[in-house]
Order: sequence, then C-alpha cells, then structure tokens
Amino acid sequence: MLKKKEKYVVAVVGATGAVGNEMIAVLEERDFPVETLRLFASERSEGVLLKFKGQDIPVETLKEDCFNGIDIALFSAGAERSKIWAPVAAKSGCVVVDNSSQWRMDPEVPLVVPEVNPHDLKWHKGIIANPNCSTIQMVVALKPIHDVAKIKRVVVTTFQAVSGTGKKAMDELLQQTVALLNFKDIEIKVYPHQIAFNVLPHIDKFLENGYTKEEMKMVNETKKIMGDPSIRVTATTVRVPVFRGHSESVNIETEKKITAQEVRELLSKSPGIVVIDNPEKNEYPLPIYASGKDEVFVGRIREDESIENGINMWVVSDNLRKGAALNAVQIAEELIKMTA
Amino acid sequence: MLKKKEKYVVAVVGATGAVGNEMIAVLEERDFPVETLRLFASERSEGVLLKFKGQDIPVETLKEDCFNGIDIALFSAGAERSKIWAPVAAKSGCVVVDNSSQWRMDPEVPLVVPEVNPHDLKWHKGIIANPNCSTIQMVVALKPIHDVAKIKRVVVTTFQAVSGTGKKAMDELLQQTVALLNFKDIEIKVYPHQIAFNVLPHIDKFLENGYTKEEMKMVNETKKIMGDPSIRVTATTVRVPVFRGHSESVNIETEKKITAQEVRELLSKSPGIVVIDNPEKNEYPLPIYASGKDEVFVGRIREDESIENGINMWVVSDNLRKGAALNAVQIAEELIKMTA
Repeated sequence: MLKKKEKYVVAVVGATGAVGNEMIAVLEERDFPVETLRLFASERSEGVLLKFKGQDIPVETLKEDCFNGIDIALFSAGAERSKIWAPVAAKSGCVVVDNSSQWRMDPEVPLVVPEVNPHDLKWHKGIIANPNCSTIQMVVALKPIHDVAKIKRVVVTTFQAVSGTGKKAMDELLQQTVALLNFKDIEIKVYPHQIAFNVLPHIDKFLENGYTKEEMKMVNETKKIMGDPSIRVTATTVRVPVFRGHSESVNIETEKKITAQEVRELLSKSPGIVVIDNPEKNEYPLPIYASGKDEVFVGRIREDESIENGINMWVVSDNLRKGAALNAVQIAEELIKMTA
Repeated sequence: MLKKKEKYVVAVVGATGAVGNEMIAVLEERDFPVETLRLFASERSEGVLLKFKGQDIPVETLKEDCFNGIDIALFSAGAERSKIWAPVAAKSGCVVVDNSSQWRMDPEVPLVVPEVNPHDLKWHKGIIANPNCSTIQMVVALKPIHDVAKIKRVVVTTFQAVSGTGKKAMDELLQQTVALLNFKDIEIKVYPHQIAFNVLPHIDKFLENGYTKEEMKMVNETKKIMGDPSIRVTATTVRVPVFRGHSESVNIETEKKITAQEVRELLSKSPGIVVIDNPEKNEYPLPIYASGKDEVFVGRIREDESIENGINMWVVSDNLRKGAALNAVQIAEELIKMTA
C-alpha cells in the first residue's frame, strides 16, 4: 500500500514509447507530487535524456534492485516485460500501475477507471491494471447510463488511431501517405496491409472464435470494470488512418427506458465527459479535436428505434491520454487520495 | 415498358460526375447492347467529349424533347434534377434507372438490387430507383441470411469513402492531405470539417430525430428492398479518409440460429458475393482491394455471443460500382432479360 508522503519517487517504465512519453507529459502538466522521476526503457535507449520540468533525466535499464526506493511505477512496456518486472517492482514495495494487457483479467488485480470503479483500488496487492484504450473511453460513457437505466447489451464498432499501436505505426501511416501521393511503392511493416487511405478490421491477434484480442478485451474488461458480468458486449475493432484519437459507434440496450435528452443531461454532468451534440451546427466529437485533450467526448446521442430501450452514441477520446497515460496517472492520484 | 431490341439507345444523365463516369465505363466493360450512347450533364460541360468504346461522345444539355428515341436513361445527376427530368424521360417512353434519392421511397417506384428483388422490376411505371450505396452492399449480404434464418434486427456502422460525395470530395481529401504533410493550412469546402486523417460521423443532412438522412436511408431502403417492413435497422454512418470503397460493420440478430460457418457457406454460393474470411492469414475484405471490383466482399464472419442468434460481419464494396453505376446497369440488364 502507498504511504502518505509530501512527494513521491515515481518511475515510468517504457519511457521512450508513445504512451511513456505521454505519461511524463501528464505527470508534469498535472503537477503530480513527484520528488524524483526515474525513467526506464530497453537497453537500446540507455542514457537517452528525456525532459521533465526542465530537467534532463537519463533513461535507465531495468535491473533486479532498480525499484528499491520507488513509490509508484507506471508501466507501459508491453505484456512480456510487465509479466516479469511488475511482480519484481511490487515485491520491492512499489505500487505498479500497468498499462499492458498482462494483469487485466487476473482476479487478484483490480482493473480501474477512476470515474467508474475507484473503490476497486482498495483491494490491490501491489499491481493495478490500466484497461485497454478503447475500453476506457467506452466505460466512462457507459457508467452513468448503467447506474440509471441498467445496460443489458452493447454493440460497439471502433475507429482506432494508429498511435494506439505506437510510434512506428504513426511513422508508417505518414510514410505510406507520402509514398502514395508521390506514386511510389509503399512499405508495409507494422500492419499486415496498407493503412494509408484504407481501414483495417484487425487490431491485435485473432483468436479461435474469430474475434481479435482487442475485441474480446472490450467484451471482458467492460464487465470487470463495471463490476457487472451480466452486461453483454459484442465488438468490432477497426484501425483507421487517423494519427490520434479513437472514435466509437456505441449501440446500447437498457433495461429501463432512457431518452436521448436524458442521456445528454446525464452525461453532461458526469465526471470526465464533455457532451458535444449540436448536429444542426455540425458539432459532434471528432478525433482531430479530441487529440491532446483529457476528456471523453460524447455526441450523436439518439434513440435507437429498432428496440424498445435503445440509444446510439458516438464516443471519442485521445487514446494516448484518457486511453492510457492519463488514466494511469489518475489511478496514481486516487491512490494518493486514499492515503489521506 | 422496355421493348425487345438487338441494341438500345442509352443515355447517361450526369455523365461528367464520379458515378456518371463509372456508368459509361461499366456499360463498355459489360458490353451492354448499346446502339447509341447519349451523354447529358449541366451546361458547364456542354460539348465536352467523353470516350466510349473508342468513340468521342459530346456531352449535351437536357431539353424538353431530348429523351425522344432513348430507350434507357441512367440518371445520376442529383435529386433535384431527377425530380424534374425523370418524369419527362419516362413520359417520352424511356425507362429511367435513377441513382438519386428522389424516387426511392415512392410507393409507385420499385427500388431494386438485382440479387435481392429483381421481381419488383415487373411493376415499374417508367422509373426504377437505384438504392443508396451503403444500403446496396448491405442488402446483398443480408438477403441470403434473411431467406434462411429471418433477420429480426440489424445494427450497422459504416466507414464510407469520399468518392460517395463525388469528385470534389476526392480532391479535397487529396489537397488536405498534401497541405497537412507540408505544414500548410488546409481548405475546408466540401465537408464541414477536415476529412484528412480524421473521421466524420456525419453523412448527408441531419434530421429532427438526430439521425442523418444517410442513416435513415439504410433503415427505410433496407425494408423496401427486402420486402419486409418487420426488419428493424439502426445505423451510424461515418465518412473516413478512404478514396473508394465503403466498409460496414454489420451486426445481425436472426430468428433462427445460424452459425458463422453456415453463413460463410451460404454467402460463398450467393450471387454477387465473395467471401474473404481467413483471419489466420490476415485475409478479410479491405476497401483498397474492393476498389474497381464488382462484388460485395464479406468477411470477419463470427457468432455474436451477446445474444442467442447473432452474427457479426464486415461488408466491403466499391461504392461507385455495386453501390451505384454497376447496380444501375445490372437493373437495365434485368429489364432486357424481361423482354425476352
């Protein structure tokens, strides 16, 4: 458990990645009570200097005793590294907030979105899992509706930005776009097919049931975070040629009737949500405007007349902020509040 | 009614547009029995020469008597022009296949997809409506499933290419992309927001119920084409930075249980459909590969376990071909068959 302190020794593991970079930026922006910031990445990046509050901080490599003296470690270095190093960190008394998929479905590990289930932080045993990006923004929008009208079923289709894959994917979209505009051959390395001017119904690996891992994350993580295994979810996750910001077309069936206007009012006063829903002025959430912002943006709220109690909505958020780095830092902030 | 002939006098109205261009190409490729091809467009294009089977054909403007002697007119010149000129053409004995939204929901006008409801051609009165692009490709994939398992409800989210809007929108995507890559300001003219590296949950105008016209077309046209008003549909239609080829995430609830494997087998032998569904080899339909092709491509077929009888699938087709020009020419081909 985290002890009450004025300031904390914080580590970012995977500091040179797209999410790691964002974690450092979010810690600075939110004036997180950092005494010392330690940065870790693979050997390739050892000694690289990254800026934090005007300071140059050298990137270190992970070692058996490297977590001694660290209070909070934000991990975003992939499932393999988390599997090995998160328990090492936890053992040395550090609280780990892990952004990988490694611990999310472990019944011993809470999976937390602070707006939805902060109470689950109480039972952590050293590791707390940060949910999948596409799940986080969806549950932030679902929770207030679930509390009022009980959600029975969700049919979601995503439009996910390439930054969800990482820096290399952002480069690939850029390079392929430039090549195509110059009538040159494109290179395909990160994704199995061209991503520029295309859409790929394929995120993460395929499973035996025909779904991708990403799709099943949305199904299973939603139930765990919402604390309600009765919520039925089906997902189709799609990569689109957008740099930053995931968008989701979310269809909801509720037990109790709730009107579009009631959803609009409810979400407008819910934490972490901004409703942008003025179609007559062409105002609705867009990934290019959500980029760099903290909130989950919801719009296109309308009743689905194909069922008795149905709602359609469009949910957009910055996948690197609320979808990853910001949610992790918010978890750490909640942990600090709990020490009070 | 069309009379039996060896060859026909065919007109393309709106010949200089994206769909009009494609109509001319499809007539040539399919060796449609054309005696003479007449091309019509707005005054701006009068005298412009367009190629058909090696011939240069001058573009004419519409006049009161211009349809005299024309057997079949393929219209793709917008709802306003169709409203005025389709009845004029029909009156002069010409059969009109109209690609605009003007006549689609008129109970006196059949709305036809040849793979789905060719029988509706029998009761036409001079005008036949060609459905909306996003509806056509969906119903081609739905019909075989409906015949076997009866579809109760469809939840669809689309990923629509800019060519659906026309040539100017294709130019806008290109120009915005070039500008952004060169750190220059972009021009926003065709769409209300930037389309390059973005997605817009907005196609056609917004209606009072919060849906767009495009979304309600999918709801209403599906019922009419399938000849079953009991099929409930809800749609979210989204523009994506893709030049050509619409993609759709389609969730289906059926009355009778049908497995993913049964859907795969059924669609594989259905007219106009190619099943591409080998996730283990990263094979699924993609808009960049559907571009320029005639078929509706279906993949990512899997059972939706959030309901008893559910199927998810991914449907892709070239919006200018099957979604517009090809379907119109296929209707004309069916009309000719009926004269036999």
